[in-house]
Amino acid sequence: MNTAPPPRPGDAVESIDTPALVIDLDRMEANLATMAAFARDHGVRLRPHAKMHKSATLARLQMAAGAVGVCVQKTSEAEALAAAGIADIYISNEVVDRAKLARVAALAGRIRLGLAVDSAEGVERLAAAVAAAGSTIEVFVEVDVGHGRCGVPAAAAGQLAQHVVSHAPPEGGLVFAGLQAYHGAAQHLRGAGEREAAAHHAAALARAAQASIGAAGIACPLVTGAGTGTFSFDAASGLWGELQAGSYLFMDRDYADNLPAPGAPRFEHALFVKSRVMSRGVSHAVIDAGDEHGLLRPRTGAGIGELPALDATVWLVPGHCDPTVNLHDRYVAVRGGLVAGVVEAVWPIEARGCVG
Amino acid sequence: MNTAPPPRPGDAVESIDTPALVIDLDRMEANLATMAAFARDHGVRLRPHAKMHKSATLARLQMAAGAVGVCVQKTSEAEALAAAGIADIYISNEVVDRAKLARVAALAGRIRLGLAVDSAEGVERLAAAVAAAGSTIEVFVEVDVGHGRCGVPAAAAGQLAQHVVSHAPPEGGLVFAGLQAYHGAAQHLRGAGEREAAAHHAAALARAAQASIGAAGIACPLVTGAGTGTFSFDAASGLWGELQAGSYLFMDRDYADNLPAPGAPRFEHALFVKSRVMSRGVSHAVIDAGDEHGLLRPRTGAGIGELPALDATVWLVPGHCDPTVNLHDRYVAVRGGLVAGVVEAVWPIEARGCVG
Repeated sequence: MNTAPPPRPGDAVESIDTPALVIDLDRMEANLATMAAFARDHGVRLRPHAKMHKSATLARLQMAAGAVGVCVQKTSEAEALAAAGIADIYISNEVVDRAKLARVAALAGRIRLGLAVDSAEGVERLAAAVAAAGSTIEVFVEVDVGHGRCGVPAAAAGQLAQHVVSHAPPEGGLVFAGLQAYHGAAQHLRGAGEREAAAHHAAALARAAQASIGAAGIACPLVTGAGTGTFSFDAASGLWGELQAGSYLFMDRDYADNLPAPGAPRFEHALFVKSRVMSRGVSHAVIDAGDEHGLLRPRTGAGIGELPALDATVWLVPGHCDPTVNLHDRYVAVRGGLVAGVVEAVWPIEARGCVG
Repeated sequence: MNTAPPPRPGDAVESIDTPALVIDLDRMEANLATMAAFARDHGVRLRPHAKMHKSATLARLQMAAGAVGVCVQKTSEAEALAAAGIADIYISNEVVDRAKLARVAALAGRIRLGLAVDSAEGVERLAAAVAAAGSTIEVFVEVDVGHGRCGVPAAAAGQLAQHVVSHAPPEGGLVFAGLQAYHGAAQHLRGAGEREAAAHHAAALARAAQASIGAAGIACPLVTGAGTGTFSFDAASGLWGELQAGSYLFMDRDYADNLPAPGAPRFEHALFVKSRVMSRGVSHAVIDAGDEHGLLRPRTGAGIGELPALDATVWLVPGHCDPTVNLHDRYVAVRGGLVAGVVEAVWPIEARGCVG
């Protein structure tokens, strides 16, 4: 891990060692409040994806602002956040390995836990694991709503839900909780119209999956999904009862490149990598972030003179927060802006490196 | 960090949780011996780049096989490996921030340490830092031999070496140690002829830098550099006295895609990511490694039947070891191959996440 001495509350931003992952708290809190208000106003639950920030502190802030809990993608992430006190976690992903399912089942005995499934084999193994642990777990049937990764076809949702329901309490430990419906590929379509069309397509498939479940005589309590690129469309559909958007909190460069949806709330960049010029060549400057180095070149027609001087601070906006956060062990949370602000807190990134 | 329980010595490979970073020890030891023999046979020193493996255990194995020490890229990496007992480290990169230079100077008081420089300002700051710490450090003038990142032009090497020498012991703490000359962009040129041409170009520039230093009346003790793609050419040049190749130990997919240089030693893949099929769609399988998921598709014309079954193990060869290793907290070292082998050891990756 980074051996640089951590900043202390009250330190000036200027003194923060580089590279460092810095949160602009004023901006982040604005984003936090904006999304919480959106969810309240639209009568949907918010369960932000913590795979983005990997931090129990940030999960707590989101829950204090109204989120019902958080999502994660990995068993390890759930264990790390649970160990740090987060008590309502949904693993929005499949687990089929028996040893890992035993850990999932054990964790389900300690916190409120959910898991996605997309195979009968996965359901049977999960049922056996929770039976052995004596725990119960909420189970979401994942349906492929256009992303083409995990999930059953919409028409197969009812059959898989029946598998889940066949292990319902009190005999079994599987509580059928609804549908996992997330269209990842739709999130970064640049045009708002393109994203809306993809979201409509996803909604049609989620509705078909709901119908398949209904035809099996099973009630579908919730559809959960959505991301920072489509949440306004997903909420407007009336279908999604829970939004999993995560990146809104920091608003990375890639999401900011999306053309905004009409009437949707806007978010500001709130996460930055503080870097420093460590070398200055005849035609470029080299900073100490990136894959060890980052290169800055003048714009076409401009000279080297427009590049920052040796040792100057350079602020970067992450293109994609999740993998950038995963390179760091801590957040430096700054109050009062990046120029004249001071360090308010340093937060561990508990779920960094939780690959398993 | 990954919360999966670590494997224990004697465990079967099959029982290793996924995703996991697995070393095939038999192959790795063959690579280790091959490069050590090459360096001995060619009368050059070997100082492998530990930014690749980030592990004190592997650095020790390399040094036991004849390496004089290791290179790193970051101050934090040097501190982490030094804390784990590695006592001869060269930071083959520039540091200009005064707070970080104070850490470099302090570390130079505890181990044998080297640092690259490419600016007069950097030399003056380093001199001040080691003077304050009362330590001495070996200093390499970095010359740009074609990569276009850090380093002074060859003709400027003498002037910068004079700056270094002006702070020589006993008055100062800077020991001029030679030239840092690494052509990163040459390493992955696919054709052996292309790499040889780039290596010759780098050698011409390094020779010009040597001449510039000689013209300043300064002896150049060593040229250090080279990588897994060019080391055989660099050694043949008679110019490089120290090879920094690192990837040879694990031999990633990208280096293996290079067409081999005639007569150069060959290395085998020795690092693998053990993954598992976690979902199986109608046209693809999803594994639990990659950016959380990895997608496997059948070859053109083949059916889904050729893809591995749900929960089957899938072994991946990293495309580039350095960032893959940085995602993990530990190596699982396996003896006897990946099919029937057993876990021999689990090693921490001490310098993982050492961004600063």
